[in-house]
Amino acid sequence: MCGIFGIYGHPQSALMTYYGLYALQHRGQESTGIVSCEKDELTGKTKFNYHKGIGLVSEVFKDEKIITEYLKGTSAIGHNRYSTTGALNRSNIQPFVVHYKNGNLAIAHNGNLTNTRYLRNNLQSEGTIFQSSTDTEIILHLIARSQKEDQIEQIKDALNQIEGAYSLVILTDDKLIAVRDPYGFRPLALGVTEDGAYVVASETCAFDLINATYIRDVLPGEIVVIDDEVLKTGKIKSFWIEKKIEKQAFCIFEFIYFSRPDSKIFGENVDKVRRKLGKLLAHEHPAPNSTEEDKVIVINVPDSSNTATLGFVTESIKLGNNVKIEIGLIRSHYVGRTFIQPQQNMRELKVKVKFNTVKGVLQGRRVVIVDDSIVRGTTSKALVKLIKDAGAKEVHFRVASPPIKFPCYYGMDFPTQDELIASRLNGDVEKIREELGVESIGYLSVEKLLEAAPKHLSFCTACFTGNYPTLIEEKPEKFEYEIFIKSADEKFD
Amino acid sequence: MCGIFGIYGHPQSALMTYYGLYALQHRGQESTGIVSCEKDELTGKTKFNYHKGIGLVSEVFKDEKIITEYLKGTSAIGHNRYSTTGALNRSNIQPFVVHYKNGNLAIAHNGNLTNTRYLRNNLQSEGTIFQSSTDTEIILHLIARSQKEDQIEQIKDALNQIEGAYSLVILTDDKLIAVRDPYGFRPLALGVTEDGAYVVASETCAFDLINATYIRDVLPGEIVVIDDEVLKTGKIKSFWIEKKIEKQAFCIFEFIYFSRPDSKIFGENVDKVRRKLGKLLAHEHPAPNSTEEDKVIVINVPDSSNTATLGFVTESIKLGNNVKIEIGLIRSHYVGRTFIQPQQNMRELKVKVKFNTVKGVLQGRRVVIVDDSIVRGTTSKALVKLIKDAGAKEVHFRVASPPIKFPCYYGMDFPTQDELIASRLNGDVEKIREELGVESIGYLSVEKLLEAAPKHLSFCTACFTGNYPTLIEEKPEKFEYEIFIKSADEKFD
Amino acid sequence: MCGIFGIYGHPQSALMTYYGLYALQHRGQESTGIVSCEKDELTGKTKFNYHKGIGLVSEVFKDEKIITEYLKGTSAIGHNRYSTTGALNRSNIQPFVVHYKNGNLAIAHNGNLTNTRYLRNNLQSEGTIFQSSTDTEIILHLIARSQKEDQIEQIKDALNQIEGAYSLVILTDDKLIAVRDPYGFRPLALGVTEDGAYVVASETCAFDLINATYIRDVLPGEIVVIDDEVLKTGKIKSFWIEKKIEKQAFCIFEFIYFSRPDSKIFGENVDKVRRKLGKLLAHEHPAPNSTEEDKVIVINVPDSSNTATLGFVTESIKLGNNVKIEIGLIRSHYVGRTFIQPQQNMRELKVKVKFNTVKGVLQGRRVVIVDDSIVRGTTSKALVKLIKDAGAKEVHFRVASPPIKFPCYYGMDFPTQDELIASRLNGDVEKIREELGVESIGYLSVEKLLEAAPKHLSFCTACFTGNYPTLIEEKPEKFEYEIFIKSADEKFD
Amino acid sequence: MCGIFGIYGHPQSALMTYYGLYALQHRGQESTGIVSCEKDELTGKTKFNYHKGIGLVSEVFKDEKIITEYLKGTSAIGHNRYSTTGALNRSNIQPFVVHYKNGNLAIAHNGNLTNTRYLRNNLQSEGTIFQSSTDTEIILHLIARSQKEDQIEQIKDALNQIEGAYSLVILTDDKLIAVRDPYGFRPLALGVTEDGAYVVASETCAFDLINATYIRDVLPGEIVVIDDEVLKTGKIKSFWIEKKIEKQAFCIFEFIYFSRPDSKIFGENVDKVRRKLGKLLAHEHPAPNSTEEDKVIVINVPDSSNTATLGFVTESIKLGNNVKIEIGLIRSHYVGRTFIQPQQNMRELKVKVKFNTVKGVLQGRRVVIVDDSIVRGTTSKALVKLIKDAGAKEVHFRVASPPIKFPCYYGMDFPTQDELIASRLNGDVEKIREELGVESIGYLSVEKLLEAAPKHLSFCTACFTGNYPTLIEEKPEKFEYEIFIKSADEKFD
Repeated sequence: MCGIFGIYGHPQSALMTYYGLYALQHRGQESTGIVSCEKDELTGKTKFNYHKGIGLVSEVFKDEKIITEYLKGTSAIGHNRYSTTGALNRSNIQPFVVHYKNGNLAIAHNGNLTNTRYLRNNLQSEGTIFQSSTDTEIILHLIARSQKEDQIEQIKDALNQIEGAYSLVILTDDKLIAVRDPYGFRPLALGVTEDGAYVVASETCAFDLINATYIRDVLPGEIVVIDDEVLKTGKIKSFWIEKKIEKQAFCIFEFIYFSRPDSKIFGENVDKVRRKLGKLLAHEHPAPNSTEEDKVIVINVPDSSNTATLGFVTESIKLGNNVKIEIGLIRSHYVGRTFIQPQQNMRELKVKVKFNTVKGVLQGRRVVIVDDSIVRGTTSKALVKLIKDAGAKEVHFRVASPPIKFPCYYGMDFPTQDELIASRLNGDVEKIREELGVESIGYLSVEKLLEAAPKHLSFCTACFTGNYPTLIEEKPEKFEYEIFIKSADEKFD
Repeated sequence: MCGIFGIYGHPQSALMTYYGLYALQHRGQESTGIVSCEKDELTGKTKFNYHKGIGLVSEVFKDEKIITEYLKGTSAIGHNRYSTTGALNRSNIQPFVVHYKNGNLAIAHNGNLTNTRYLRNNLQSEGTIFQSSTDTEIILHLIARSQKEDQIEQIKDALNQIEGAYSLVILTDDKLIAVRDPYGFRPLALGVTEDGAYVVASETCAFDLINATYIRDVLPGEIVVIDDEVLKTGKIKSFWIEKKIEKQAFCIFEFIYFSRPDSKIFGENVDKVRRKLGKLLAHEHPAPNSTEEDKVIVINVPDSSNTATLGFVTESIKLGNNVKIEIGLIRSHYVGRTFIQPQQNMRELKVKVKFNTVKGVLQGRRVVIVDDSIVRGTTSKALVKLIKDAGAKEVHFRVASPPIKFPCYYGMDFPTQDELIASRLNGDVEKIREELGVESIGYLSVEKLLEAAPKHLSFCTACFTGNYPTLIEEKPEKFEYEIFIKSADEKFD
Repeated sequence: MCGIFGIYGHPQSALMTYYGLYALQHRGQESTGIVSCEKDELTGKTKFNYHKGIGLVSEVFKDEKIITEYLKGTSAIGHNRYSTTGALNRSNIQPFVVHYKNGNLAIAHNGNLTNTRYLRNNLQSEGTIFQSSTDTEIILHLIARSQKEDQIEQIKDALNQIEGAYSLVILTDDKLIAVRDPYGFRPLALGVTEDGAYVVASETCAFDLINATYIRDVLPGEIVVIDDEVLKTGKIKSFWIEKKIEKQAFCIFEFIYFSRPDSKIFGENVDKVRRKLGKLLAHEHPAPNSTEEDKVIVINVPDSSNTATLGFVTESIKLGNNVKIEIGLIRSHYVGRTFIQPQQNMRELKVKVKFNTVKGVLQGRRVVIVDDSIVRGTTSKALVKLIKDAGAKEVHFRVASPPIKFPCYYGMDFPTQDELIASRLNGDVEKIREELGVESIGYLSVEKLLEAAPKHLSFCTACFTGNYPTLIEEKPEKFEYEIFIKSADEKFD
Repeated sequence: MCGIFGIYGHPQSALMTYYGLYALQHRGQESTGIVSCEKDELTGKTKFNYHKGIGLVSEVFKDEKIITEYLKGTSAIGHNRYSTTGALNRSNIQPFVVHYKNGNLAIAHNGNLTNTRYLRNNLQSEGTIFQSSTDTEIILHLIARSQKEDQIEQIKDALNQIEGAYSLVILTDDKLIAVRDPYGFRPLALGVTEDGAYVVASETCAFDLINATYIRDVLPGEIVVIDDEVLKTGKIKSFWIEKKIEKQAFCIFEFIYFSRPDSKIFGENVDKVRRKLGKLLAHEHPAPNSTEEDKVIVINVPDSSNTATLGFVTESIKLGNNVKIEIGLIRSHYVGRTFIQPQQNMRELKVKVKFNTVKGVLQGRRVVIVDDSIVRGTTSKALVKLIKDAGAKEVHFRVASPPIKFPCYYGMDFPTQDELIASRLNGDVEKIREELGVESIGYLSVEKLLEAAPKHLSFCTACFTGNYPTLIEEKPEKFEYEIFIKSADEKFD
């Protein structure tokens, strides 16, 4: 997963991008980068400046002068990359910046392509060299190879060849281009700042921070172009990817976990959907019966399940079960990229470093813990142990989404299928209950999940159902599939 | 404010201290340091190793080998320093390590002395040189100057001369010493690890992380000594500071804001006190009347007022006012030490970087916001504006502590008195309401505050009442009062 | 200018490359990098590891583990880049490493191509994207685009299209390839280590450091291939670039200034040539007459003219002019990349930081200063002033090479033609004398220069004569001619 | 060994100190630091700013702003520390800066005290704590402890108690003080800049760089004081240490090796003395007979024996032995602090990294190598092997100083006595010859050594003769004798 941001027509474009990326930090903490386009007033020539690095936005751009003195220009794009399992490589840090026949080109990508093996082979056989192991580089080569003369046509040419999930921001010498694939897997919103600059961002929380106003989403299959003309006329230019698809497939996991609750994605408040998930969960898998003498308490996993927990509790009470919401887990927010991992004999510490229990709250209680989802199950298991160690009599697990059983080929960074607890235990919920060591467990059904989401939209639920909306290449490339070039920066930065 | 930690008798004493300091990170984010005592098995000679730096624990000890290969030894102490207004100076980073007639000595201090001007003048006139501007260095000189031969007697000698607040951990060549001043201003807990090593820490959350068990608090006026004999016998050695005081004065602000909710301090769960503060606040300053058509929502300021808000809402409902708890503010946890500050014309951004509103929740609502305390008032004011901008009809402010009107001389890092909103507006609550721009405001009274805290204890409430439990030097030294030596590291690290 | 190194068949290939690059440090101090090829014993798959950075070899590879733990494998290549006037850009640091249809490919280049504008345009129009502004990247694209299947054929294909100066080391998954252009502009030597690994290096001083034995030069137009078969048989594979040229054109400036005196290049000891330059200079432009009462002293410019000065003095004495060699200038070797430059009013300091005079030696003397060459003239002028300030009665300048009047398109990093003092003053030696402020000046003639060099070889003297051995593109690209992408690392590293 | 610098009355005092320390870099490469005194124009209060670090001057002050923006003020002192065998410790980096009853105080020290054990014990028993393991800290404590009121009197008080070698610069809130011990072991020169600021420096080469004029040496036993009054009147204030000594004892090794040849120390040009050493050596131990057929060549060890070699050759020829000077060794100047050391099986590499031979020069020759001195003998031995490997028929070693047989207690950083080759082999020159593997060896005698040095001065020759001019404490402290506090910065910087 990744977060992308773009701006056109702002005197402090890099600073705005910095704030935008900061607001999107939750979408990627591994690495980040900003590219700005600077125009020489005298010659009219443009120069692309960039800075990229490993770490959080505030770390990589620690030296303020990089933003204020170096990354000059009135347009810019930026990218946050998610912390994947180890494929950290300096040459993979986005945005990518290159020079080709039509000038400079920078690109930032959220999503994952599904026909990269085919495309890469084709390109290589024609003599293309690759400098990264990302699918994003492929898009750049396809644009550069297009026989069309017009840049937008070149981009359309390229997009018509790629399959899978992609929300893109592209910066050229005179345009900002924002693209969303025809399925609309990943969100991408369009806005305008108080000064009249146009912005695009993965989520609207990036707009809130810089006082920009949300206009509308970039639509599935749309290519939005912002240039000086658009700044003048206020009429956004719109082109379309010529591709027939059966139906759109918005990623429902964005609502469940990935997006920030204060964002609006796919035209809907994330917070609202998450609350519904909690409410519907209370219907499908109610808390055990609470009595005045033996009050059942419901706790959240901060901060990911805060909203769903609130929905669950409210609905439980409305349904007549007088449970009590409590704060039973405290989350630490200081874990850094380089935290010293505990040795073997302190295995629990890994979870304890992130969560501590409030003993006074849990002791002697029947506890319902609401989480947004269960992936590997290891953290859930450790949390349950912590809660029981704190003296809870019973622990009942409630999950505001269905069991995750299938890999995601569209950019969600799940582990391999074998590592998914629901896949490993063949979806046998009783076995999951046993492994987690809880008194009861309840997952939301796919039907209820879809009920919580906006009804008029069409979603991808492949990770729960295995119904992939696109064709998937045999053995799809994942991360560094076949390119084995690694920089020492990965290890020794 | 600061966090301190010490351990004696553990093969990985530095690693344990690292985890302990990590758990105490909330007590100080400016700088951190660890000192370990390493014994040469052959010669029996001891060596003190240390590493200190500016930044979070995970940053300063980024290079794992510092902990695992360099800071060897079976005893260690550590310190986190709070981010004060600018007095960052490498030579002020604790623990301090020195060599004197009886060997090596390291010290870490939480609190603030109140007779430093007098002591410093005395020491200087006798020929002492100072290498830092901290009050802690004074303690070291007093110990070294003592005419006593026994180290514990030297320490008692020194402690008998100092006034104010001090929880200390001291490391010598063969002992770990933990001290709490006779008033007991700052907390200090004593525990034991699974392997039988003794630990002391500002709060018990540090014990939880390393699976240590809480034994008891270091008592006001007590000097606890841990040495090899204690490891063998299991009998902790205890000495006392010979000082008559009227009554103890535990810092009540530790319960209100500073300590972690999952800690036990002064023998009581922080979370429990905070919930009571919320409940009593609901009695003293109830939310406006909620109706089914125009439901009043109550929101927290994450994460500091989470527990008090829960208490407030539960009690409100119990009292018959059917308000609804909601998550209206989302907090970002990525703000780094070096975040690029927005320019003049983006003043609000400073608060927005930390908090964003959930518009769907707030729009058209009457909103009660519960906070733990108001210091300067600037953040509160900005939050109210954010909430109103998000469409709230009314905002009612509820504060789970009394107005802060007086400076703290015991280690709480408040701004100068002029900057305290309650002091600046002469405690006129109506004027505060006006300045914050809210429909109503309610502060908890000092009486109720004391009701929420453990009854059998005696507290310092000076910041609310001006009743200082100790004599205060005229013009007490604060930070770098009269020593003007500054390292460039402060600015260019 | 640059230094290149390659090794095949050594268990510590990266460490050997580190030492080799260190010995070649004088050929480039701006940036450096090493690529190693690591084979997985089980799968037989190869991985390319690299580390590159701005600074000296000892700085960039400061963390020993990069060499010993990370850059594993039995073959490796490395590159030192010269400090050009400002075109420092992280994406230009060599070696370049890419992946293409036949596997991994890394390349390091010493020299400069002269038809890059044409080639780049061609490649771009076919859809190639560029990630650096170097001519070296062009070679990679030409290899990848070749229709040939065999890798050596692909390389020949590419080399047949490029013009200009190039000594190359290329690393593939199973070979080390060393190439020298048909003119033989830049040196490239072949050797073998005590353990039987093959090495190539710009100069033989790199062999001396690692106890390798010089075998022979890579010949002009030759493509030397080292693979496992070569290791076994000991028979080096040799291929040839199919290109007719009129005659070879070895860079004579390598002898004059660039190479180390302890190296053998083009089959000849550099030190020997330099001594002859000094001797012939003594014939063409003798020192003023020395008498016992008014002894003329001859001083060197350390360390570049040490050998030529020795030759000059010996020959002068042999010719009957009893001059005396003296050390009149002391050179500082501590100037770092980031030395703080003096302000306007301390202009001389720039030279004084590098050179100081020995006053006792110079005072009241007639001084001959011998230098290897004069480029801009600014340093020479400042040196003359220093010497006169130290009390010299007269200063006579002797230059062991002809006036530099023309730009070098083959890789020598001269400033623009306008900045060359001899070009600016139209080769008028009297005007140069005047500008430098000396009593007399004498440059070696081109004829004598060629007399000093090995007679059986054919040299490029274009910088002195303007006779370029190859066609030169109109407005040849230099540095970042038309690609304007810049990384912030350039400025803020 | 160390280099010290001080300036008073210059608007850019820190920048001047930076240049001064840069010129004195040869006196210490381990660590460096600058302290400046900044006066608040309004309040008249002074602030001491400092920056210190491990590395070269250009590395530690890499960030220009430290010098130009941070280290403000019109007076400053600085220090370079020599790379000792391992006692690197951040808290030992000078200058030291402290605050005491009379204000701020900073000190930088070149030399070594000989009664530190006694003084340290005394001070500790009175309650002094130590934060470093240096003798310099002792001086600070003695000043602070003095009962005198006047600062100069306090300093005199302190100096009267210490024994050994010390050249000091001391900075106070309103003065620059320069001190040289009564024996005058270490040099210290006084000068004035073009702008009228006063400067002191270990050697005059520091004056040359900043265009300052040498006035005179600080005299043995003198305390020079520069303050605002001195700036106005131009009359330097001079005080004296009240201590009777037998005779002065200038360190003769400063002439032999340590000082720069372009410096004037003890009132004499270093270069001149070194030339005489070479000449006298030619008399005492002439080169073997040179013939036209079998010319003997004389080579230097760059750069330390350059001048002596020149003297040796000139005198040899004058004496009728027609030897020839040659450059047979090339020295690399790129070895960094962190150069990766070769493994066991590449032992020679350690010397080869620094020196390479010019084979064409040495092959088949009888070679005389002139060096300034031999300490351990390991480098000499390795050099001889290199020269023989390059084909030299014979190697004759000539040393421009006597055998070093005794430790230096006055600040010259020799290894322990056992490691000195001349001490280890009991001064048996034949055995030394054998160990080095040379055909002949010749050391200059102590008599001739003294003949080369200025006759009117009295020198310390203890390292050659064992005649120590002062009493030496039993088991004198060396480096970290008994204080075992170490910072991790030492290892992980």
